[in-house]
Amino acid sequence: MTDAVDDIATHPRFVSLEGGEGAGKTTVLNALRDALLREGRDVVSTREPGGTPLAERIRELLLNPDGERIAAETELLLMFASRAQHVRETVLPALARGAWVISDRFTDSSYAYQGGGRGLDLAFIAELERRVVGIRPGLTLLLDLGVSQGRERTLGRDLYPDRIERERDDFFERVRAGFLARARAEPARVRVIDASQPASVVAGDAVAILRMFIDRGGFA
Amino acid sequence: MTDAVDDIATHPRFVSLEGGEGAGKTTVLNALRDALLREGRDVVSTREPGGTPLAERIRELLLNPDGERIAAETELLLMFASRAQHVRETVLPALARGAWVISDRFTDSSYAYQGGGRGLDLAFIAELERRVVGIRPGLTLLLDLGVSQGRERTLGRDLYPDRIERERDDFFERVRAGFLARARAEPARVRVIDASQPASVVAGDAVAILRMFIDRGGFA
Ligand SMILES: Nc1ncnc2c1ncn2[C@@H]1O[C@H](COP(=O)(O)OP(=O)(O)O)[C@@H](O)[C@H]1O
Ligand SMILES: Nc1ncnc2c1ncn2[C@@H]1O[C@H](COP(=O)(O)OP(=O)(O)O)[C@@H](O)[C@H]1O
Ligand SMILES: [Mg+2]
Ligand SMILES: [Mg+2]
Repeated sequence: MTDAVDDIATHPRFVSLEGGEGAGKTTVLNALRDALLREGRDVVSTREPGGTPLAERIRELLLNPDGERIAAETELLLMFASRAQHVRETVLPALARGAWVISDRFTDSSYAYQGGGRGLDLAFIAELERRVVGIRPGLTLLLDLGVSQGRERTLGRDLYPDRIERERDDFFERVRAGFLARARAEPARVRVIDASQPASVVAGDAVAILRMFIDRGGFA
Repeated sequence: MTDAVDDIATHPRFVSLEGGEGAGKTTVLNALRDALLREGRDVVSTREPGGTPLAERIRELLLNPDGERIAAETELLLMFASRAQHVRETVLPALARGAWVISDRFTDSSYAYQGGGRGLDLAFIAELERRVVGIRPGLTLLLDLGVSQGRERTLGRDLYPDRIERERDDFFERVRAGFLARARAEPARVRVIDASQPASVVAGDAVAILRMFIDRGGFA
C-alpha cells in the first residue's frame, strides 16, 4: 500500500469503476476481469452498495425503502455502513490473499451522489472515508457520459427504476460534476474515459489503461 | 431549544431513558408516559435503534445479522443511520406539533456501547452526533445497575438473546462505565437513578425528577 492524498492508502491490485447509470461500468468490469483472468490472475469482482450478504441487505434498504422518505444523512451513513462491511469482509481479505479486486462503484460514488447530488458536506464524507474505509483503489476508471445518453441506455432495463434512479436530471448533472471533480483532485488515480464511444472502444481503452498501470507498477 | 455543551441543542419536551439490558428502561418509560398522559399531554413514546419503519429494519440488521460478523464501524454507522432517520421522521415532527417525546435509548447509548463497549473513538461519535443528530434530550434518566443484576432480570425473556445481548460481562462493564461518564460530563442533563431499588421506587423517582424538570422549565 502506498500513501495517496489525504493520507489514505491506495492498493495497486484494487480497481474501481465509477460513473452514472448506463455509463458502462458493468460492461467494462467484465472486460477487465476477463483480461486479468486470461493472465491467470485471481480476480474478485464486487459492487457497491453491497459486496457482502449484510451489505446487500443494506443496499436493499437504500434502493427500496418501502415508501418511507430517506433523509440524505441516513442515505450517507447507510452507504458508509455497507462500505465499512464490504472493505473488511470482502476487499481486504481478497487483497491479503493476493487477488485483484474490481469494484463496480466505491467511495467516489459517495462524493458524487451524497456530496454532489444531495449536497452533503464533502469534508464530512472525507472524514467518514478516513475513519471507516481507510483504503482507496490504486486505479479508478471514471466512465463519463452525458445524463441523457445514460438514460437512453438504461431505458430498456429500467422498467422498475429504484429510488435513486428515479431522481431528476439536475440531480444526475450534479453527480456527474461530482465525479469529474474527483478526477481533477486525483488525476493519478482517477482516469476519465469518454463513455459515449462505442462499447468496444471504451472496454479496449479501459483494458489498455489497466495494462499500463500494471506494467508501471502503479501510477503513484 | 437551548444550547447544551458541544453546541448541540437540547429540547425540553424530549426525554430519553438509558441504561443496560434489564435496568428498567421500558418499565420507567411506561411510568413517565402514564404520568404525562394523566396531565392531558400529547406523548410519543419511541425507541432506538428503531422508531420509524426503515429504522426498525436497520435495527433488525443490527440485532440479527444472519451469522455475518458485523464490524464495529458498520455497527456504529447503522446505529447513526437509524438515528438520523428517527430524529427527522419521528422525534422532530412530534416536538414540532407540541408533543412530548420519550425515547427508550438515544445517542448516549452509542457513546456507551460503540464507544465504551467497542472502543471506537468518542470524538468520532461526537462528530456523528453533531453532523447527523443535532439534538439532545432536555432530560436523560440513566438507570444504573450492576451487570449481573441486569442479567438476572432478563434471564426469563432472553431465551433467544440478540447479537448484542450475547456479549460477555466485560463488554457490559465497559458499557456501564461509558454511561456513567456521560452523566459526569453532563450532570444537568443526565440524572442517574440507582436501578437496583424496587421497580416502584425507581419509577417514582423518575416521575419526581421529570416533575421537577417540568416545574423548573428545564434544568439548563
Ligand atoms: N459504450 C457503450 N455504447 C453503447 N452502449 C453501451 C456502452 N457501454 C454499455 N452499453 C450498454 O448500455 C447499457 C448500460 O451498460 P452497463 O454496463 O450496464 O452500465 P452501468 O453498469 O454503468 O449502469 C447496457 O445495455 C450496455 O450494453
Ligand atoms: N427496579 C426493578 N427491580 C426489579 N425488577 C425490575 C425493576 N425494573 C424492572 N424490573 C423487571 O426487570 C425486567 C427488565 O425490565 P425492563 O423495564 O424491560 O428493562 P429494560 O427495558 O431496561 O431492558 C422486567 O421483567 C421488569 O419487570
Ligand atoms: Mg451496472
Ligand atoms: Mg426495554
